Amino acid sequence: MTITAGAHLNGVDTPTLFATLDAVKAQPEIAKFQFRAENTWQSGTHSRSTISGFFGAGQELAHENPTVVEADHPAVLVGRDRGPTPVEYLLPALAACLTSGVANIAAARGVALTKVTSVVEGDIDLLGILGLGGGAVRNGYEGIRVTFHIEGDADDETLRGIVEQSRRRSAVFDALTNPTPVSIDVVTG
Amino acid sequence: MTITAGAHLNGVDTPTLFATLDAVKAQPEIAKFQFRAENTWQSGTHSRSTISGFFGAGQELAHENPTVVEADHPAVLVGRDRGPTPVEYLLPALAACLTSGVANIAAARGVALTKVTSVVEGDIDLLGILGLGGGAVRNGYEGIRVTFHIEGDADDETLRGIVEQSRRRSAVFDALTNPTPVSIDVVTG
Repeated sequence: MTITAGAHLNGVDTPTLFATLDAVKAQPEIAKFQFRAENTWQSGTHSRSTISGFFGAGQELAHENPTVVEADHPAVLVGRDRGPTPVEYLLPALAACLTSGVANIAAARGVALTKVTSVVEGDIDLLGILGLGGGAVRNGYEGIRVTFHIEGDADDETLRGIVEQSRRRSAVFDALTNPTPVSIDVVTG
Repeated sequence: MTITAGAHLNGVDTPTLFATLDAVKAQPEIAKFQFRAENTWQSGTHSRSTISGFFGAGQELAHENPTVVEADHPAVLVGRDRGPTPVEYLLPALAACLTSGVANIAAARGVALTKVTSVVEGDIDLLGILGLGGGAVRNGYEGIRVTFHIEGDADDETLRGIVEQSRRRSAVFDALTNPTPVSIDVVTG
């Protein structure tokens, strides 16, 4: 891989990106991260999460600003629509993950992007979560489709190759397409 | 299942919840939903998604208010920290999904909840997405742990049973623990 373009192509600090890769090669344990969210039930299907602190690069860190994530059900699903449904948040997570990869990979390959947009659609049959599917309908999405529109100073094949490489390196794409172990502990009282 | 308590226990409109179940039983096709997000790349690893319209109950619908989801990388991951990383959004999605189920199921079972909080932790080794894991490190979370604190007018076993039933009916828990087909289309130019 060769750095062929300006240091901040696509707004990516490419020298720092490559320096970070070198630092991780020299000390692989700094790549171990732990992300976190805290959630507090509000009322009905409405809950509020906060994303702030995380562990990474061998230390406790925090985002510059905490992010509040509101989730609820819309009226048609017997909620008060104080925010998207929880399962909807998987869709921007996927789009954003693929898009950040596209920007980084394009910068590393010397491609200047002028536009990257995407639409994500997730089909879900709520017979699953409603317990009315007779075991034949899953709870989650039956399928998710992402459609990218991407423009830049490279040919069609190169632009498609950047999206494909982003897919291969995407944390969210992996988390959705492959099983992740999830444990749930409960403290009562 | 018996409705044993007030119509709005836990802020859940239980009569409407049961009426909705009856409506879906009579007309299962109204349970087919499609959720969507639109994403626009901003700069570097920063992108902005919007969640607004969706299809459900046989019609095009929209949330009362669109929700904007900002995602970026923190400085330690060569971003400008305009929002959480994309993969962090999976954690509030999971907490919120389980929590909305807990409130609904508790209401259906006549249990008044006084507090439901949770912490979600996701361990991820970034050697995967950095392409430095030699194929042995996955891109996504190695594991996710949810810890619930739940209080209400029921014994420990009942409260644990509510969380367990919510897990069994959770869309996000399923989406993370089982594979979801994801397709990616690219339009260039």
